[in-house]
Amino acid sequence: MQLDRNGLEILDREECLRLLALTTLGRVGFTSGALPTVLPVNFHLDRERILVHTARGGRLDAALKNAVVAFEADEFDPVDHSGWSVAVTGVASELNGATEHHSALEEDVAHWAPVGDGAVVAISTEMMSGRRIRTGV
Amino acid sequence: MQLDRNGLEILDREECLRLLALTTLGRVGFTSGALPTVLPVNFHLDRERILVHTARGGRLDAALKNAVVAFEADEFDPVDHSGWSVAVTGVASELNGATEHHSALEEDVAHWAPVGDGAVVAISTEMMSGRRIRTGV
Repeated sequence: MQLDRNGLEILDREECLRLLALTTLGRVGFTSGALPTVLPVNFHLDRERILVHTARGGRLDAALKNAVVAFEADEFDPVDHSGWSVAVTGVASELNGATEHHSALEEDVAHWAPVGDGAVVAISTEMMSGRRIRTGV
Repeated sequence: MQLDRNGLEILDREECLRLLALTTLGRVGFTSGALPTVLPVNFHLDRERILVHTARGGRLDAALKNAVVAFEADEFDPVDHSGWSVAVTGVASELNGATEHHSALEEDVAHWAPVGDGAVVAISTEMMSGRRIRTGV
């Protein structure tokens, strides 16, 4: 097990992808009106891409058009002091003809917001890192 | 109750602060090496400032020196499909003589990482917005 300078276990890409497939709530970090912003999103891991619904014409939709964005998901148990987080930096691009992805998202996910005819944005995952903390560390 | 264009309840500042005081895990969005990054952090709400531990000399520490950053916290229950999120954009500044804040953080928080002699960074909360989703919305 490889540890970082803070004593957290470093997760490899395969483990990061496995963990992302287990959850549906993440956060996207992007620039809106020249200011950094982080918002929660429901997502679905499709192979090695992160698919996110956005409301067409909304703030997220505008910000995620071919922009470099950050994505993060985590799970943390405050009782036994264990958890993991995965951080991604990637390029966001709108999917065209995204009906199949809409379906996957609809089935998978308790939405933060009604989906309507929103866009589906894919975030690439070339840059991905993960950490795990365990009880007693 | 005021709703946004997505049908989510808009939370006022007072309610945002109340919710932030109930939790200790948030995420910070910042720029590192010219790329957007989101990382989980433990935090403590001190009056209207968000206090975050950083490892001195680490990536977060370097990135949060007088930078404009984003902060987000949320709680979401996938079973009853309810939850809230609060998003902040503010200026991060290192606290000097932060012993009292260290103590508050130490007591409050199950840490993602050993604290050591890390710095305490305060994020201002002038720009804060919150949303709540409820079952059946």
